[in-house]
Amino acid sequence: MSGLFAPLFAPPELRAAVSARAWVEAMTEAEGALAGAAAAAGLVPAAAAAAIAAARPPEPDVLGEAALASGNPVVPLVAALREAVGDEHAEHVHRGATSQDILDTAAMLVARRARALIVAELDGVARACAGMARAHAGTVMAGRTLLQQALPVTFGLKAAGWLDATLDARAGLVRVRLDAQLGGAAGTLAAFGDAGPAVAAGFAERLGLGAPALPWHTARGRVAELGAALAVAAGAAGKAALDLVLLAQTEVGEVRAGSGGSSALPHKQNPIGAIRARACAERVPPLAALLLGAMAQEHERAAGAWHAEWEPLAQALALTGGAVAALRETLETLAVRPERMRANLEAAGGRLLAERVALALPAAARGAVGEAAAADGSFRAALLARPEVAAHVDAAALDALLDPAGYLGATAELIDRALARAGRELDR
Amino acid sequence: MSGLFAPLFAPPELRAAVSARAWVEAMTEAEGALAGAAAAAGLVPAAAAAAIAAARPPEPDVLGEAALASGNPVVPLVAALREAVGDEHAEHVHRGATSQDILDTAAMLVARRARALIVAELDGVARACAGMARAHAGTVMAGRTLLQQALPVTFGLKAAGWLDATLDARAGLVRVRLDAQLGGAAGTLAAFGDAGPAVAAGFAERLGLGAPALPWHTARGRVAELGAALAVAAGAAGKAALDLVLLAQTEVGEVRAGSGGSSALPHKQNPIGAIRARACAERVPPLAALLLGAMAQEHERAAGAWHAEWEPLAQALALTGGAVAALRETLETLAVRPERMRANLEAAGGRLLAERVALALPAAARGAVGEAAAADGSFRAALLARPEVAAHVDAAALDALLDPAGYLGATAELIDRALARAGRELDR
Amino acid sequence: MSGLFAPLFAPPELRAAVSARAWVEAMTEAEGALAGAAAAAGLVPAAAAAAIAAARPPEPDVLGEAALASGNPVVPLVAALREAVGDEHAEHVHRGATSQDILDTAAMLVARRARALIVAELDGVARACAGMARAHAGTVMAGRTLLQQALPVTFGLKAAGWLDATLDARAGLVRVRLDAQLGGAAGTLAAFGDAGPAVAAGFAERLGLGAPALPWHTARGRVAELGAALAVAAGAAGKAALDLVLLAQTEVGEVRAGSGGSSALPHKQNPIGAIRARACAERVPPLAALLLGAMAQEHERAAGAWHAEWEPLAQALALTGGAVAALRETLETLAVRPERMRANLEAAGGRLLAERVALALPAAARGAVGEAAAADGSFRAALLARPEVAAHVDAAALDALLDPAGYLGATAELIDRALARAGRELDR
Amino acid sequence: MSGLFAPLFAPPELRAAVSARAWVEAMTEAEGALAGAAAAAGLVPAAAAAAIAAARPPEPDVLGEAALASGNPVVPLVAALREAVGDEHAEHVHRGATSQDILDTAAMLVARRARALIVAELDGVARACAGMARAHAGTVMAGRTLLQQALPVTFGLKAAGWLDATLDARAGLVRVRLDAQLGGAAGTLAAFGDAGPAVAAGFAERLGLGAPALPWHTARGRVAELGAALAVAAGAAGKAALDLVLLAQTEVGEVRAGSGGSSALPHKQNPIGAIRARACAERVPPLAALLLGAMAQEHERAAGAWHAEWEPLAQALALTGGAVAALRETLETLAVRPERMRANLEAAGGRLLAERVALALPAAARGAVGEAAAADGSFRAALLARPEVAAHVDAAALDALLDPAGYLGATAELIDRALARAGRELDR
Repeated sequence: MSGLFAPLFAPPELRAAVSARAWVEAMTEAEGALAGAAAAAGLVPAAAAAAIAAARPPEPDVLGEAALASGNPVVPLVAALREAVGDEHAEHVHRGATSQDILDTAAMLVARRARALIVAELDGVARACAGMARAHAGTVMAGRTLLQQALPVTFGLKAAGWLDATLDARAGLVRVRLDAQLGGAAGTLAAFGDAGPAVAAGFAERLGLGAPALPWHTARGRVAELGAALAVAAGAAGKAALDLVLLAQTEVGEVRAGSGGSSALPHKQNPIGAIRARACAERVPPLAALLLGAMAQEHERAAGAWHAEWEPLAQALALTGGAVAALRETLETLAVRPERMRANLEAAGGRLLAERVALALPAAARGAVGEAAAADGSFRAALLARPEVAAHVDAAALDALLDPAGYLGATAELIDRALARAGRELDR
Repeated sequence: MSGLFAPLFAPPELRAAVSARAWVEAMTEAEGALAGAAAAAGLVPAAAAAAIAAARPPEPDVLGEAALASGNPVVPLVAALREAVGDEHAEHVHRGATSQDILDTAAMLVARRARALIVAELDGVARACAGMARAHAGTVMAGRTLLQQALPVTFGLKAAGWLDATLDARAGLVRVRLDAQLGGAAGTLAAFGDAGPAVAAGFAERLGLGAPALPWHTARGRVAELGAALAVAAGAAGKAALDLVLLAQTEVGEVRAGSGGSSALPHKQNPIGAIRARACAERVPPLAALLLGAMAQEHERAAGAWHAEWEPLAQALALTGGAVAALRETLETLAVRPERMRANLEAAGGRLLAERVALALPAAARGAVGEAAAADGSFRAALLARPEVAAHVDAAALDALLDPAGYLGATAELIDRALARAGRELDR
Repeated sequence: MSGLFAPLFAPPELRAAVSARAWVEAMTEAEGALAGAAAAAGLVPAAAAAAIAAARPPEPDVLGEAALASGNPVVPLVAALREAVGDEHAEHVHRGATSQDILDTAAMLVARRARALIVAELDGVARACAGMARAHAGTVMAGRTLLQQALPVTFGLKAAGWLDATLDARAGLVRVRLDAQLGGAAGTLAAFGDAGPAVAAGFAERLGLGAPALPWHTARGRVAELGAALAVAAGAAGKAALDLVLLAQTEVGEVRAGSGGSSALPHKQNPIGAIRARACAERVPPLAALLLGAMAQEHERAAGAWHAEWEPLAQALALTGGAVAALRETLETLAVRPERMRANLEAAGGRLLAERVALALPAAARGAVGEAAAADGSFRAALLARPEVAAHVDAAALDALLDPAGYLGATAELIDRALARAGRELDR
Repeated sequence: MSGLFAPLFAPPELRAAVSARAWVEAMTEAEGALAGAAAAAGLVPAAAAAAIAAARPPEPDVLGEAALASGNPVVPLVAALREAVGDEHAEHVHRGATSQDILDTAAMLVARRARALIVAELDGVARACAGMARAHAGTVMAGRTLLQQALPVTFGLKAAGWLDATLDARAGLVRVRLDAQLGGAAGTLAAFGDAGPAVAAGFAERLGLGAPALPWHTARGRVAELGAALAVAAGAAGKAALDLVLLAQTEVGEVRAGSGGSSALPHKQNPIGAIRARACAERVPPLAALLLGAMAQEHERAAGAWHAEWEPLAQALALTGGAVAALRETLETLAVRPERMRANLEAAGGRLLAERVALALPAAARGAVGEAAAADGSFRAALLARPEVAAHVDAAALDALLDPAGYLGATAELIDRALARAGRELDR
């Protein structure tokens, strides 16, 4: 992503983690681990393996231009490493591997580092949500369905919902397998002789990646699952950001999210962080769709679909982290306005409690509640004016029924559950 | 899906499992379970609960037309059930729930039944692949990268790769949480008084669904994950189908997949099953993208994004099952042609073994292998004609090097691993 | 689409226009036109052509089940038509064509009829918007950027914007080529001898479709463009629906869109039509993505990507029409509430006019406007209290500056332009 | 796109045209044109306009970092330009505009330059196709449906099909409106007083962009249409590339497309250019889906969906150009192998002519052709051995019927049509 827009869509550490340089470093690291594993199996001299492991990653731009002839940047990387280690060791560079082994493994290394950053941001979101769930467990506000006020909820319950979805997304992302890939030219490990499985296992171990049962050169479920897990995480962030943007509307005003004003329009309080989170989140599902669709890969290496994965995977990592980080920043600086929440709730004059009043009445009397709610003016007065209602509740009882804080159902328990889960799953 | 195209894209049981009737039955079942759980909590008379549980599902078409006013089919369903149970019990129908509770829970019931059918088809694919992996463990063929012959593999290894990917997809699909949804109008369970959590737990238990910690009315990770897991399963099927279509090409002819001839073109052997699998598989990622994108749902009920999920979820279930079933049928009737595999492999005159020959020579002599491979005519003769080669291998040694069956690396072990996994994960 | 959900997502005429029956009728019509064109070229006896043209379309379900063997429903259709016309004429049915010719041509016939219905709905939307643009040309309301009040606009201008976008979408949809497809088994028209081009031209003419220069069996730009034009139309409808849902929020209340109340929550005014429009609109871009992605079709007939188009194309037609129709219904019954628009606008105490006040001052004095806007309390008083401001405007001048109706810029002209365009492009 | 992968996915000129620098230059150019148009309307001093127009674009990276506070890079651009022109002219920079005006207009400037490059590449593809359509008008080869040999075609006809699709895509791309955007903070042009329409017209004219009837800040059809037209162009390139990859398969060998060999596998002829074209093409539809889906933009400026457009639009431009350029390079260096085409065609022993033979026989005798085609061995001998056939054709007549060059139908005319169209539409 370009320097102009990139800062808006991903934090700097994450941009670095998926940058061209990070990919080249990961590819170089993979070549080093390959040489090491091959040396352990007696296929490569230890001195050569040491030289390869010590080689410096070449410049990304140089590899990029040189990649055109072969269609991927590993071929020029190998050439650069061979030059770096000298004639003595050159033949041992890339021993037994194919370009895809190195690139796929590098992708998993890049993904591992980026995922750690994303998970840390998810943790930050979760902690911020937990703090608000606790602090605002009893802060009543209107629950809104189809963007209409429906029943009372609390802001703490809303935050608990974001928290639970964040923990779900986190669990899904952590679960994705990040396995090394090593198969050689056609996935048989043939160039390693009898040592293939041992080299593959050593390769994975040296890199701290999982060792798959089979090479996965054209079994792309791992990449697709990673893309989907990222989209779920981005989606969870996008949902909370959507709620925040809606709560920050001028006419709602229940939160102030960021100070993104405008010189021309100084009265505006643009919720820039939440907007950025939404923009990031909106961009991830199409990338996940690409990765899912790219599972159709021919035989032992795809003629295009594999190449189509590289940048979208990097973008999905960056944008998901961007969505989560922008949400975290927003939540950490959020101004919650309980007085506006209550004022908006009370503007309907208790009509949000109509369900509760109705349930407190015999079935035959319930129709009167709907009529009263539909009437203009005071809902309370309209209720008391109806004999079907007045026969069953007096003014004091009605006031109790119309108190939103008294009609929150399991809100407190639901918040507790989310907080308990956060206690178990965070802070390790 | 219409009666004209539907049979091509999903097997009949699966179409039934996601049909309008199945949805209405699931919604009706959910209302019955709700009444039962509410009765257990003392909120509804046992007789009413029994009457509701015994009510017959109404006709889908009637609900569909009546759904326009409220925007979902639960409102007319409730009306129909109230009429069915009579005035005595009517007020207890849908007690404490909101439309989304019933529809989301019904979606999970539909998904559970459809998933079981899809998993059974995945098992069928896995068994067919396992059979071929075993039977053709040593059937050599060309491994192909970028659609060019590369190194020898065996057809058994190819089948083992499909098998492993199928087991991955199966595991991912089985792992998806199918939880009941019950939250009432705004997710607080307020209409159940203190009994909310108990009713929610009882509701889930009666339906055999998971009981979530929190209602998930606008936390749509579950639906998005289900869509993604379906797309991964469809993608795994699509990859195998792609390989089959390529192997069945007139010029390749390594398999015969289906007897889909044409009256006008009687020589053709169209691999219809694999083609259908590909067509199904191609359609699932966009549906998954929709479900991932639809996670952006407003507040306590979305104004559109929720509604957008219903049909795509049903279609994703049907099409994934369609892809897997069409692949299974194809695999179960596949004619494998080892003689064509060997003939295609040998057409290159041993050039696929160039890597092996080169590795058998000192580094300085390896360039000669490439020159020999690039020359027209017999690769073997060209190799023997070069002194750098002849100095190190004689004709007999070269013949051994050029035997593809001797350069299969870890093929046997990789097949064994896949079979062992299948033994563990299937047939329980 | 199923009977349960379908009514929510497409009007009945449109569902009929893309139904299985409509496809079978269109395929049958194509076979009739083919026979007629072949008869005109002397390749088929006139009596046979007449018999074929008179044949009744078979039942869709029968074709669907029978399509499995060949992978498409044309093969059983041809069998059914042959039976219908009897042994005498049977050999002349489907003369020279391939299945894809008939199915692609039928798709274009289906698209033509569905498009006409969609265009009629777009016209309805445009007329409703034009009416509101005219009626509310001067109805001031807050313009909102990033969901924050920004500057005054009028509701008429908003409606004019929807109108212009609707006319754009209409023009794009009308422009899409709907061409017949006839190429024979491999696109050479070989089975027609020398008469191929004449038969192809006659075929198109009889059906009222365009006659393409070349067969387009695997040149799928037409289908992809149609999908994209539908998505643009759905997107235009979805944008207006989004605005309406936002304006209908309880706290905004500037429109009432539909009467979708809830028995449990009688105070709610759910904008069901706009919600349905959004749900439809959200579903079309993934279908367009599928059609765009499906352009990758192999050689002279695709092994899957072609089959993947059929249902998504039908769905895209239905859902686009559903989006536009639901929007039209909403607009035609919309209650606009100018008093709430003005009240919301005035709630900010004139801060939306800050830009105007600033522009009326010397540059050096403008900073004071921002300070005044950021202060609590009366913006007007805060302005007058600042000497930099008071030096340049007195109270009367300030009141004029703070009148939103006086700061509407080119609003009237922009509305006029949209109305003029509507006058030119509608009602022909 | 990063320096590592970018060269594989877009040519250098196109990368430059959509680079961060190009965006900043376009934004700066837009500010200059705005000042010029405002000066022409008397709103800005001519000296200020001249100073603004002469200002140098700032560094992209600086803007990018500074964009976080406001959520877009125009705010820091304006600050930089104000500093550049000095206090005297600072207040006239960005006069009357909003950030979106500048960014949307810059996007159109970027798109215009990138489109010109893409169109030039499409022209190159078209010319290469035209050359091959002419040169190989009579080069017979197997037409393939469902990847099975079907009927004879010629390579020239295949090239003509690619040509026609390329011209379609070109026409669609050229047709997309590239309009300036100017509306001010809420789309009313209010800050320009009465001069709004004149300034807007002058702004567009100075930039050589179209002048829209209405501002299109949240009417995103233009952007969506551009995305779709790009995806259609990428799709047309991807289809040809798919054909080439299939024709280049080892077992087919009808073209050699590129010299992308492998040091380890010197016998391979990887069609790298076609593979790159496919990889690019596969990535564009998801981006188009995003742009189509992003039409749902709130009120007068979207809270996220607008921001989500920027990079995907730039990527869609680059990748489409990458697909087309990679295809052009491949076509320009393609080695066509007519002898392999004929050999593959003849491998079926004339069975591809079964349709023709059948049509030459009375209907009652046609079944024998299918039987003969299904039999092993010589099709010709099998036909002559059947009395139903021998009664109607002798050996000489049969040989004529089995000559593929004699069963090409309208091939020559279809090629001529495509060439005539190319003659009309190119080279102007």
